[in-house]
Amino acid sequence: MMPLLFSLDDAHSLRTPLCRGLNADAGRLERRRFPDGESYLRIHNEVTGRPVLVLADLSRPDDKFLPLSFLCDTLRELGASQVGLIAPYLCYMRQDDRFHAGEAVTSRTFARLLSTQIDWLVTVDPHLHRYHRLDEIYRVPSTVVQAAPLLADWLGERQDPLLLVGPDAESEQWVAKIAARSGHDYVVGSKVRSGDRQVAVQLPDLSAWHQHTAVIIDDVISSGQTVLRCLQALRAQGLNRVDCAVIHGLFADDIEQQLTDNGLRRLITTNAIAHPSNAIDLSPLLLAPIRKHLAAS
Amino acid sequence: MMPLLFSLDDAHSLRTPLCRGLNADAGRLERRRFPDGESYLRIHNEVTGRPVLVLADLSRPDDKFLPLSFLCDTLRELGASQVGLIAPYLCYMRQDDRFHAGEAVTSRTFARLLSTQIDWLVTVDPHLHRYHRLDEIYRVPSTVVQAAPLLADWLGERQDPLLLVGPDAESEQWVAKIAARSGHDYVVGSKVRSGDRQVAVQLPDLSAWHQHTAVIIDDVISSGQTVLRCLQALRAQGLNRVDCAVIHGLFADDIEQQLTDNGLRRLITTNAIAHPSNAIDLSPLLLAPIRKHLAAS
Repeated sequence: MMPLLFSLDDAHSLRTPLCRGLNADAGRLERRRFPDGESYLRIHNEVTGRPVLVLADLSRPDDKFLPLSFLCDTLRELGASQVGLIAPYLCYMRQDDRFHAGEAVTSRTFARLLSTQIDWLVTVDPHLHRYHRLDEIYRVPSTVVQAAPLLADWLGERQDPLLLVGPDAESEQWVAKIAARSGHDYVVGSKVRSGDRQVAVQLPDLSAWHQHTAVIIDDVISSGQTVLRCLQALRAQGLNRVDCAVIHGLFADDIEQQLTDNGLRRLITTNAIAHPSNAIDLSPLLLAPIRKHLAAS
Repeated sequence: MMPLLFSLDDAHSLRTPLCRGLNADAGRLERRRFPDGESYLRIHNEVTGRPVLVLADLSRPDDKFLPLSFLCDTLRELGASQVGLIAPYLCYMRQDDRFHAGEAVTSRTFARLLSTQIDWLVTVDPHLHRYHRLDEIYRVPSTVVQAAPLLADWLGERQDPLLLVGPDAESEQWVAKIAARSGHDYVVGSKVRSGDRQVAVQLPDLSAWHQHTAVIIDDVISSGQTVLRCLQALRAQGLNRVDCAVIHGLFADDIEQQLTDNGLRRLITTNAIAHPSNAIDLSPLLLAPIRKHLAAS
């Protein structure tokens, strides 16, 4: 039976390419808030016996969790044969330990709650650090898609000589792979974080690459302080053509303006989270794992 | 062991009287949001082996659910002997059926999710209409407290002659009881709702009560359109002294200003939801049921 794809967010740019690639019907979802702030949700399709996909942007997740739960629960009550979640950005992955006494390990609670709502999960480059696999906290089958090859291919098509810049040691392995696949040089900085928005980045001597365009590479941009400090460190060494390419563009505060003011030339993101900087379409990577889960469930 | 009481909202006016009445320690909760919009939460008390109470204002609930879940989950991980929830206003009670095909029965999903987080629940006048008991959807023991006697006693102390006004037939039984206990007359109107914010209210002939102060009585004020139309209907019949007393003051939009502009003299609420209109303290009603659950768990 043809799958039905619902998007929690009408504007998600992965909606149309996923429907086309999977030969799925686009689901019609009605959503609004009552005057008292509660969510109303209504599904305008016959779902009985059909496999259903839910595409959800889980950035800024707190007020999205209940609507997502209402959607998934209703789909199952109405007889969907399976409810698979496509969350290109998976939230609540960073607090993966109790770093200080009394802290909530939010990744664990979020995964436990979400696992009761869905049959399987496909996501793109979640923050896996102390956890090595989503199975450690998610109780449903999941597939993690790596966007690095797409990013590398996009960078490989650039004609100007590039220097790829990883802002910290944590990114080294990842940046090295992108550099190898795209055929560009790379360097890695060192980062010291002293608060949510306090970051210092140091870079090695870059005098060999003064004619290159620097491209800062990271998996996520949120407060953007890491990218901002990296940009400043690059310019302090005389590299004046600086771009930035990240997978997940969250963009807190007014960071885009700050980056522009500090001389960033171009910002490139994947369409994991819809944003004007989206330049790399993830759908080609997502189709195979989604088809695999659809067939297995 | 002395219970520990955490409040999801530092400003909740029930916090201090409940701690005093229950001889409970006030818990120290640290809460903030990361730049990417995720919640951080840390408990600054030793909770192992202690009974814990969580006081939560569940008005405008969507972005409160995850922080509340993180709090309850962490308390249990850290060894609290029980986690009881005091939610003076219980959200997501109105969508208690699938009125149109495909609608989410949000009350059921919310109750299922919340029931996994807590050991018991105490609330005040939840909207019980098609459900007759919280047990039909909540899987934990619960106690429903009725605020009507407190409201009646407060109205009974008023010296001026009052006419209590229930805006619709649904409120008749409730308003009749408050009238009997407070010794005032009452009337009940009829309401036709054609949308979230479209309401018409008709009242019977009120010429016998022209010298009275009218007090509109309701369990909840949200968009406030019901109260506003009732106020206009009262004034159209020449009743110019009109007050309004409700249990749960949610106050969407700019309804307080509209009510004042339309001649409402005074607005009175309980402290179920903290607001400048709070005039009736619910804590005397809550202590006994909380003690009962503490002892039973």
